[in-house]
Amino acid sequence: MTPSPLRAVLPSYLEGAWCTPSAAAVTASPPALVLDASTGELVTRVSAAGLDLGSALDYARTVGQAALGELTFHQRAMRLKQMALLLTEKKPELYALSSRTGATTIDSTVDIDGGIGVLFTYSSKGRRDLPNAHVYVDGPVEPLSKDGSFLARHVYTRLPGVAVQINAFNFPVWGALEKFAPAFLAGMPTLVKPATPSGYVTEAVVRILVDSGLLPAGSLQLVSGSVPTLFDEVRLGDLVAFTGSASTAEKLRANDSVQTGGVRFTIETDSVNASVLGPDAVAGTPEFDAFVRQVVTEMTVKAGQKCTAIRRVIVPASGVDDVIAAVRARIEARIVLGDPRVPGVTMGPLASIAQRDEVLRQVSRLIEAGGELVIGTTDAPPITRANGTTAAAPAGAFVAPMLLHFADAQAAAVHEVEAFGPVASILGYDTLAEAIDLVRRGGGSLVTSIATHDPRVAVELTTGIAAFNGRVLLLDRDDARTSTGHGSPLPQLVHGGPGRAGGGEELGGIRAVLHHMQRTAIQGSPEMLTALTGIWHQGAAAQTGARHPFRKSLAELKLGDQIGSDARTVTLDDIEHFAEFTGDTFYAHMNEEAAAANPFFPGRVAHGYLLVSWAAGLFVDPAPGPVLANYGLENLRFVTPVSPGDSIRVTLTAKQITPRETDDYGEVRWDAVLTNQKGELVASYDVLTLVAQH
Amino acid sequence: MTPSPLRAVLPSYLEGAWCTPSAAAVTASPPALVLDASTGELVTRVSAAGLDLGSALDYARTVGQAALGELTFHQRAMRLKQMALLLTEKKPELYALSSRTGATTIDSTVDIDGGIGVLFTYSSKGRRDLPNAHVYVDGPVEPLSKDGSFLARHVYTRLPGVAVQINAFNFPVWGALEKFAPAFLAGMPTLVKPATPSGYVTEAVVRILVDSGLLPAGSLQLVSGSVPTLFDEVRLGDLVAFTGSASTAEKLRANDSVQTGGVRFTIETDSVNASVLGPDAVAGTPEFDAFVRQVVTEMTVKAGQKCTAIRRVIVPASGVDDVIAAVRARIEARIVLGDPRVPGVTMGPLASIAQRDEVLRQVSRLIEAGGELVIGTTDAPPITRANGTTAAAPAGAFVAPMLLHFADAQAAAVHEVEAFGPVASILGYDTLAEAIDLVRRGGGSLVTSIATHDPRVAVELTTGIAAFNGRVLLLDRDDARTSTGHGSPLPQLVHGGPGRAGGGEELGGIRAVLHHMQRTAIQGSPEMLTALTGIWHQGAAAQTGARHPFRKSLAELKLGDQIGSDARTVTLDDIEHFAEFTGDTFYAHMNEEAAAANPFFPGRVAHGYLLVSWAAGLFVDPAPGPVLANYGLENLRFVTPVSPGDSIRVTLTAKQITPRETDDYGEVRWDAVLTNQKGELVASYDVLTLVAQH
Repeated sequence: MTPSPLRAVLPSYLEGAWCTPSAAAVTASPPALVLDASTGELVTRVSAAGLDLGSALDYARTVGQAALGELTFHQRAMRLKQMALLLTEKKPELYALSSRTGATTIDSTVDIDGGIGVLFTYSSKGRRDLPNAHVYVDGPVEPLSKDGSFLARHVYTRLPGVAVQINAFNFPVWGALEKFAPAFLAGMPTLVKPATPSGYVTEAVVRILVDSGLLPAGSLQLVSGSVPTLFDEVRLGDLVAFTGSASTAEKLRANDSVQTGGVRFTIETDSVNASVLGPDAVAGTPEFDAFVRQVVTEMTVKAGQKCTAIRRVIVPASGVDDVIAAVRARIEARIVLGDPRVPGVTMGPLASIAQRDEVLRQVSRLIEAGGELVIGTTDAPPITRANGTTAAAPAGAFVAPMLLHFADAQAAAVHEVEAFGPVASILGYDTLAEAIDLVRRGGGSLVTSIATHDPRVAVELTTGIAAFNGRVLLLDRDDARTSTGHGSPLPQLVHGGPGRAGGGEELGGIRAVLHHMQRTAIQGSPEMLTALTGIWHQGAAAQTGARHPFRKSLAELKLGDQIGSDARTVTLDDIEHFAEFTGDTFYAHMNEEAAAANPFFPGRVAHGYLLVSWAAGLFVDPAPGPVLANYGLENLRFVTPVSPGDSIRVTLTAKQITPRETDDYGEVRWDAVLTNQKGELVASYDVLTLVAQH
Repeated sequence: MTPSPLRAVLPSYLEGAWCTPSAAAVTASPPALVLDASTGELVTRVSAAGLDLGSALDYARTVGQAALGELTFHQRAMRLKQMALLLTEKKPELYALSSRTGATTIDSTVDIDGGIGVLFTYSSKGRRDLPNAHVYVDGPVEPLSKDGSFLARHVYTRLPGVAVQINAFNFPVWGALEKFAPAFLAGMPTLVKPATPSGYVTEAVVRILVDSGLLPAGSLQLVSGSVPTLFDEVRLGDLVAFTGSASTAEKLRANDSVQTGGVRFTIETDSVNASVLGPDAVAGTPEFDAFVRQVVTEMTVKAGQKCTAIRRVIVPASGVDDVIAAVRARIEARIVLGDPRVPGVTMGPLASIAQRDEVLRQVSRLIEAGGELVIGTTDAPPITRANGTTAAAPAGAFVAPMLLHFADAQAAAVHEVEAFGPVASILGYDTLAEAIDLVRRGGGSLVTSIATHDPRVAVELTTGIAAFNGRVLLLDRDDARTSTGHGSPLPQLVHGGPGRAGGGEELGGIRAVLHHMQRTAIQGSPEMLTALTGIWHQGAAAQTGARHPFRKSLAELKLGDQIGSDARTVTLDDIEHFAEFTGDTFYAHMNEEAAAANPFFPGRVAHGYLLVSWAAGLFVDPAPGPVLANYGLENLRFVTPVSPGDSIRVTLTAKQITPRETDDYGEVRWDAVLTNQKGELVASYDVLTLVAQH
């Protein structure tokens, strides 16, 4: 089956089947017409009239939750990788559809490859940062009783409902996948609702995934079209993640299900983002050039239809003219406006005529508020045709790049009004405090960038504005070539911002997975916490059998399998020998008088690394077996010093067992405790090993 | 100056001065009268009429932010400890006031000692889990370019506004301090608004703290009385933390400043919490006894006026009668109702006559919905007097402990109606799935407890209900004696819950500190990230001088101070010698053929601990000096195996410098990188040392 954007009505995928509104429903409520952004040709018709969303949500909560619950984090992560590989194969289809939305090849790369990249990143982060299990443990053990019989852990379990994902029109692939990946990894089923103007590209992605067989039943549903009553159907345990305009967000948030119903609602709205040029970054510096390149990129990629685009260009007052001139020169040299399918075109139209009109309306507001149009025009721009000549494009949604200058940087409109297209405003500042104030006046942003090579400027500006931003990018000569750019959210980094930006947080690696889960403090005995978390806790049952735990495969090993070693006595000769062999002749090991003068040692003591090395000698089982390698160690703390004549013993206990989905071995974390002849704690740490599956 | 609850009108503390409404304001809007809960005598009058809250909030945002900004996390943490010590001294005054609210000595301990305990915990957690700095770094480095020139960290910076804390009447001390401590530690100034019926106890706490001189200017303000227009004054960058009724929360949340203004609003409302008896925990088991003890405690401590109290007692249907009988017997044996100042009294009145009437109204609703009163009475109970006789108490707000039985466990009211007093309802279940469903029907709770000794029951119930709870307590014979109890929030553990419980999260150690800060992804070069975070990043400038960094005191040492060692070649003799000395004769070190058959090794390789021990020998400076001890090691990973003939060298760089506020030494974290003769990474880790200040 291939993507079918040209069907009479774009289908939805609900309860395991493709569906479209009935003829009667379509007649009663005519579908929206979606046109090619450049040519005005009909692409598809969109309607969700009469579809039973309540039933679809219940399907997710029951069938979807059950199917995803059968997979561990790692198994879900593997599925994400397979989806990413499949979508990579199908990229040509997606690019062809994407160009109809007005996207150039570069715009499509941002959207399509960017979206696939999110799947890859979540697949690898999911396997690296999450256990191969169903719950996630947050933070350390909290001891609650002196005798160790009562303690607590914070545990994340998945929300029991459905993740409803409402996306904006500008990134139909990335927008869908960046919300889907963390929900899927968390084990929450998704119902995705793309925006009407580009929903046919999302539909193609969902179709590819559905056809792949990689989706557990109910884990992904699609509704194509407007869903005004959706919020009446969500309830406690569900989550709604919205990207779009602040005004729509406000309406949705007012719904009872959010206000009092306990539905988790995260919002990402476009914001009036800023980019600040440092006082040191005058014309001629690498930072000035990098800043200008970035401004032009952010004005023109995706024709400026990015919630992260730079809207406010904040530069030293003395540098305003230089920046305007440099931006103008770069736009003239680089930007070719036209149908993105025409070779040589570097900037396409807006997504629709309606968007074009809206952008021009906001530009008018900015001009009325004192903005002077110093680059570009509000007139319909000529576009470049295949033969290299230019012509008017009456059916296309084209707008020229525009830069406005505000002589009064305090004008309210420049900090509040957003023209969601290739439009930015430039403002001058005199002091860093003033620059900070201007950034803050945006009322909360997704991102601010700062171009400076002076660390003091970077620190002062960043600490002044960080609380008003979800992301801050520091641009200078050292990272200008490798910077991923002001406007690019990355799956590793949180995306979202306070205030005007909606107050939400998406992405950021597993942080976004955890947003789909509930953090709960669990108090209990070591035995119960071990059973719940899959992590052995001090005080829980341990088994010391005839068989050394190193002789057990991953499949045989159990939490609490333990070996207690014999004691070994440390002599002064041992210490001196170790010092000589390693070269570590630190005075605490070699000089009785100096060691005794140290506040932490009674006199000469054994090297910490001697103790850890001996401990390995005490617990290791030397012959070839399932334990393949010691690949690391964590949380080592030396507690009680060991003097000559003291003896140590080690207790090693299987603490966490993590089989891999793709290898015939996995990780085992061992709890190591060294004690002395008095039973005092000498050292504790976790030993990390690789152990064969069989 | 001493607490002054008996002044004509209870004062507020705003903008650095104590104040009361003007005579004109009091005349125009008469104060609320607050009466002794047991005797009905006038305690104080409360009004905030005419006080300028907008000005007080601005004072916090300017003076308070500036003063707190001069202190590091550790310095603020030290202040909290000093406050806790001071309040400990003043406990007798606070206990005397507390008894007027109806609190018994045990109730007062929960409130007063509990609140002081929060300060102590935040003081120690703040110094242990936060750096001695102004920003907090979250999660690992995110590399964003292959050459290491562009990377990112997530950084928390404090919110730039004021934390408005609105508290409930039941815990005037704990409620104030559990919100204040994390805000103060984060560096956010507080404006606390206690509930009118017990605000005179909070006023006493604030007065003690103000008089102490421990509060930076503007860091704590108090408003005594109703503040209906408060939400008109808060804005982006401020935070409101509310504890109280769901209906009040709903009204406050609807305010524009929260809906669209970007004010962070966290809510903790009382919820219809459950306690579940496992099917294994039949009468005669230790779990049954512990469960019954806990139910009676939660019904009667603070006369049941706790947002965490057990409202739904969910037990196997076959055990309902046993539980009722045991609860009745324990109440009869243990509970003595009366004025808490009378010796022998174990349960006091409710906070006010209005509260008593409200509780009786809710009990009526429960009875109308099918609840049968099986323990207690709705009649005015007789109270115990000093001479041991009982009598009616017409002026006191006394209510008897009541247990209702619902034959129909599905009755909606029992899951929705809360009588905020010594009242619980008992329900039977047949299967674990049914028990889970009953807990969930509470619509989100602060806490659920489960009494079972069967780990399978514990895991099934816990994973089924965790997403509906902020906290789950697992009670069994192993922790019954040491359990801190169903109803006790702990500063180490998150407090709050989804849905009905308000959806907020408080406490939980530094988690609550971070709720007062904004997480921002910061992208930039290693140099810039080092400057911003105070943590040296790979790729940032490093200094290798004539002086070994171990010869520098904490005051002299700089981030990036580095030593690069000579190379040392590993021989087969070295490996065999180390194996013999340590006893670690693992085959990968000793048997060429077996080692080569291992998937990770080319043949015999050096022990990881040999390499780490040698590295210490290569970088250590042995003579006595400022470096006092190596107290641990973190994040050790072995990357490339080392074969005989390979040579290693180590680079050690000062990564993080943490002076202590209370000692003449502090922590230094060193970045250790081992490479081989080809420049390949052999191992990396952090070395933790203690270094003298001078």
